[in-house]
Amino acid sequence: MTRIRHLVSVEDLASAEILGLFRQAKEYAGDLRGWSEVCRGRILASLFYEPSTRTRLSFESAMQRLGGGVVTSAEMSSSSAAKGESLADTVRVVSGAYADLIVLRHPSEGAARLASEFSRVPVVNAGDGSHEHPTQTLCDLYTLWIEKERLEGLDVVLAGDLRYSRTIHSFVYALARFGANIVCVPHRGLELPEYVVRRLREEYGTEPVRADATDLGDIARESDAVYLTPQKPHQLSLFTDASRLRVDRVDAVYMTRPQTERHGDAEVSARYMRLSSSAMAAAPLREAIVMHPLPRRDEIAAELDDDPRSRYFTQAARGVPVRMAILAFLLGRLELEAQPPENEPRMFPVELGVNPCPNTNCVTHTEKRHLRLGFRLTSRDPLRAACGYCSHEIPIGLVGCSTTRHFHARDSATARKIRPDHLVFFRDEQQAMALGFSAAVR
Amino acid sequence: MTRIRHLVSVEDLASAEILGLFRQAKEYAGDLRGWSEVCRGRILASLFYEPSTRTRLSFESAMQRLGGGVVTSAEMSSSSAAKGESLADTVRVVSGAYADLIVLRHPSEGAARLASEFSRVPVVNAGDGSHEHPTQTLCDLYTLWIEKERLEGLDVVLAGDLRYSRTIHSFVYALARFGANIVCVPHRGLELPEYVVRRLREEYGTEPVRADATDLGDIARESDAVYLTPQKPHQLSLFTDASRLRVDRVDAVYMTRPQTERHGDAEVSARYMRLSSSAMAAAPLREAIVMHPLPRRDEIAAELDDDPRSRYFTQAARGVPVRMAILAFLLGRLELEAQPPENEPRMFPVELGVNPCPNTNCVTHTEKRHLRLGFRLTSRDPLRAACGYCSHEIPIGLVGCSTTRHFHARDSATARKIRPDHLVFFRDEQQAMALGFSAAVR
Amino acid sequence: MTRIRHLVSVEDLASAEILGLFRQAKEYAGDLRGWSEVCRGRILASLFYEPSTRTRLSFESAMQRLGGGVVTSAEMSSSSAAKGESLADTVRVVSGAYADLIVLRHPSEGAARLASEFSRVPVVNAGDGSHEHPTQTLCDLYTLWIEKERLEGLDVVLAGDLRYSRTIHSFVYALARFGANIVCVPHRGLELPEYVVRRLREEYGTEPVRADATDLGDIARESDAVYLTPQKPHQLSLFTDASRLRVDRVDAVYMTRPQTERHGDAEVSARYMRLSSSAMAAAPLREAIVMHPLPRRDEIAAELDDDPRSRYFTQAARGVPVRMAILAFLLGRLELEAQPPENEPRMFPVELGVNPCPNTNCVTHTEKRHLRLGFRLTSRDPLRAACGYCSHEIPIGLVGCSTTRHFHARDSATARKIRPDHLVFFRDEQQAMALGFSAAVR
Repeated sequence: MTRIRHLVSVEDLASAEILGLFRQAKEYAGDLRGWSEVCRGRILASLFYEPSTRTRLSFESAMQRLGGGVVTSAEMSSSSAAKGESLADTVRVVSGAYADLIVLRHPSEGAARLASEFSRVPVVNAGDGSHEHPTQTLCDLYTLWIEKERLEGLDVVLAGDLRYSRTIHSFVYALARFGANIVCVPHRGLELPEYVVRRLREEYGTEPVRADATDLGDIARESDAVYLTPQKPHQLSLFTDASRLRVDRVDAVYMTRPQTERHGDAEVSARYMRLSSSAMAAAPLREAIVMHPLPRRDEIAAELDDDPRSRYFTQAARGVPVRMAILAFLLGRLELEAQPPENEPRMFPVELGVNPCPNTNCVTHTEKRHLRLGFRLTSRDPLRAACGYCSHEIPIGLVGCSTTRHFHARDSATARKIRPDHLVFFRDEQQAMALGFSAAVR
Repeated sequence: MTRIRHLVSVEDLASAEILGLFRQAKEYAGDLRGWSEVCRGRILASLFYEPSTRTRLSFESAMQRLGGGVVTSAEMSSSSAAKGESLADTVRVVSGAYADLIVLRHPSEGAARLASEFSRVPVVNAGDGSHEHPTQTLCDLYTLWIEKERLEGLDVVLAGDLRYSRTIHSFVYALARFGANIVCVPHRGLELPEYVVRRLREEYGTEPVRADATDLGDIARESDAVYLTPQKPHQLSLFTDASRLRVDRVDAVYMTRPQTERHGDAEVSARYMRLSSSAMAAAPLREAIVMHPLPRRDEIAAELDDDPRSRYFTQAARGVPVRMAILAFLLGRLELEAQPPENEPRMFPVELGVNPCPNTNCVTHTEKRHLRLGFRLTSRDPLRAACGYCSHEIPIGLVGCSTTRHFHARDSATARKIRPDHLVFFRDEQQAMALGFSAAVR
Repeated sequence: MTRIRHLVSVEDLASAEILGLFRQAKEYAGDLRGWSEVCRGRILASLFYEPSTRTRLSFESAMQRLGGGVVTSAEMSSSSAAKGESLADTVRVVSGAYADLIVLRHPSEGAARLASEFSRVPVVNAGDGSHEHPTQTLCDLYTLWIEKERLEGLDVVLAGDLRYSRTIHSFVYALARFGANIVCVPHRGLELPEYVVRRLREEYGTEPVRADATDLGDIARESDAVYLTPQKPHQLSLFTDASRLRVDRVDAVYMTRPQTERHGDAEVSARYMRLSSSAMAAAPLREAIVMHPLPRRDEIAAELDDDPRSRYFTQAARGVPVRMAILAFLLGRLELEAQPPENEPRMFPVELGVNPCPNTNCVTHTEKRHLRLGFRLTSRDPLRAACGYCSHEIPIGLVGCSTTRHFHARDSATARKIRPDHLVFFRDEQQAMALGFSAAVR
């Protein structure tokens, strides 16, 4: 039997697979009503632990357009969960015979990864806290791909709240992966987080460069623009001075709303940037399409709705054909001429039962039963690890080896030589000793 | 491309279309299970901003009996709307690719009209506050048509809360339109509102006549009955004394529940009229069918449930075939040999950005973004205008012309000569002057 | 026309019908995706007056796997019911044309019976308070039947909260009916209620015997085990000493969670028994499958999840094919070679309008309108009657005859001779006299 494919993160798909899905989505979009035999007899279960009408309806519409059935729990949090059932158990039951695919929305980060470990059918992550929302990212990428007929080398401006927007972070990695350049124009104080920039550098070879964004006019007025670009010669050669790039032709402006429910700052909302016709009049934006993950509030002026460059409603509509392709693929009703990702990030078990994840919103803290703590090594030198569920970096004070029961300095040569499945992380010496470890003898 | 047809108000359908829909509904009702190919591949989105199980299930059942798919948000108010999304944006997204038709329930009056302006697919109004609920009206009318094999000349008693019942108002216009006579037997204090009576007179040529309802016995005991009849000779000739008609043969009694959630009067509920077997024993009611929009509380005694004249449950069941016909028609899967309404009420833009609508529950007050204020002229002499969304009459103190920047008395000859698209309404001189208008020079 | 079949209680199905349904369920389970034409064009309405994701999704999945449509109200209590509509009216409307079958979940005991009286389509009870949940029972029974290839003579251990678990009571009757032996291993204080034991004896001829459960080890440590067995020679011959049976080979352990929402006892939860690998190591349990109605909390250790004897997730998954068989059967799409139950329990009307049911959670107390009070005679000698809806025993002080207007002692010969449809029950003499009855003259 082939292993079950899940879509928890965009990383679960190889780049060639993504492009294959896009080609299929384009075909579906040609006539949304002509595919009602593709998933006949299959059932999708929508399990939403927090409400999200847009995402839910988009998935359910996609499944029905493919001729499949849908069972929905739009308010999971008020039902089974209220009876104290673990997410793992719920998923085991629903994947038993109720459904052939599960779409999961959950407030805890890492919830979809957890679900995928216990499910007998494919799990699609429809948003897990601030962590991932891969189908949204794929829809965004698809819009760029459809509109510009390529992804590599595109110049994409990301504007607004770059700190708290889950959408932005996933999108940024996806852009980097396909070789697009990113111009960050954040609301002041809502810059792209440092760990995102570092991951871009370490995993995607993308370098940030200070950019001269004066040509962008209004939308960059109050921002220190940063240009993130794949470090490849053909890219840099586009610019005369790589140390201070001039942004003079933008392919897309991706605007985001202030995530007030996360930072709760009324003041931010009041001063938040607003994309208007005049802002879009800047010369480099002449052919830039305008994107937005929606819902918007006031950050895009209504006057732009009729602007031919505005694509945010089309972008939302494209969620249906893209999700159709994803569902058909995961349900085994669509074959792609592409190989799955080769080196899947391996998850190592966390020893000693002490949860090292610092993220209080991580599913490892909210769902304590039926969970096997795990981490991934994100870097060997310097030694860095991330929570296997929510991907937050694990703060490492000292490093232990579960066989020698010794602990070592994090950046010591010995630490680097410990086999990953023997690695134990400690906040400090006190914790290490409390857990029965001792300092390494020389 | 043909323009999209919506069903926001019964007025959106020509009378011949309505009768065409009824004929089709009758055919559907013959075997509800035999039509599962009609809307195959189409998707209906149920967007309910306030709960209404009966209406929602009826639409969803109708769509499924036609073989179509359904995506549902039974609690819209707790999801997208909570993120501050405008109704206009929600409709644009859902109508993008999610659905081929939108059924909308919303607490704000005029919401469905607003939605129809932004939708790329047909919008069906499933109730907008106290304003319209056209499919309910069509189901009621259909029951009369099926049971009595005609509509013209029927004598229909409307009993109970005629003031706050949305159902009653729409039904009254529909009856008038098809030439039925209406006998109003209101609970005291809950008479048909004056503006409804005026609209009946002005738009439908229906005149109220004081009726002698003593023959109706119990149900009219505490009421001053009013008889509303189309002013056509063949009608009046039925009665010996047109100034005080005798109601001696009734075709239907339409009972309504007290709308306590609107008038909040516990006392009304306590004394509210109650239709019982003894009330239905009055001679003129011998062949009258009993109708009720449901849910009922105590206003129809349970003993009537088995009375062969009772039709309220059948009436509710008929919601399915009627809605099937409506959905099939709006989705372009049913062709009617009838022309659409010719003179659609034109909506003129409201100038100066001051909202003249006095209805605080109107969507123009609750949904401020993405809304173009508009009004309809309901009468030229006297000059009368209604909010383009909720249909409430606009209080007109003075009338201005947006080109001359002069204001005039409402009933002046000059006022009547202003082109509708130049008309501006003012509460008073102060407001007119504040907005830069001056008195007309003679 | 054949009469409509409902599934309010397992008793509504003959034993041969149940086995026929199991055979069909087994066939469905062979390929869940191959039956999408069976109920094409039929519609199921899910009316849930209290949330239950698992049960609801299971039914909706079953219906969709059969190719039928589904309309759902997952929160009935917040909609029509809020407008004061009676359950009877709601059911009459929904069964009119909206749906071809109703699945009802309701907090009031007896609600499904009430619904079935007013419905024009089959009603399936998906749980009415603590009363019945027949499809759950059938799923449990099906798991035993599939795993052990028979039901008669099986030894089934029921462990945990045997007092408040609706699931357990229904299961116990079903086991007795099919000739299985039951070993009760209750949490202390949560024993099987006396009325259940009595019904087992009176209706199923099942006798309780004190059992020696020492061999069961951990799971019986703190319990006084009771063995309930059909009084047939071939059963007793299995044991050397019928007065104190030795439990030495168990076919299944059925574990239940503490119904804290019913007894509200935090202390119980704290000390509640826990099924672990070590508990399952007892010799008699070697081939016992482990069942649980789910959701579980801590009463089954996660370590058992991978034990080959664990069947609780499979058991839940089997809800789909079993419900498919039930739906297909009730919708007339599956013919069983079996006769319906012959002697349906007759319901007699309660006279005088005084509700004798002592159960405050009975639907006769919560739904006062449109209800015809009724009782069933469960025993003639001694005279015993049960509420026709919730099945609770009616406390009988004195017995009256509605024709003679006399009252009699409950255990008098005269009382036993009164025709059931003339029987009236009184708490005491005072009540009897207040209702116009007098003592019998000799």
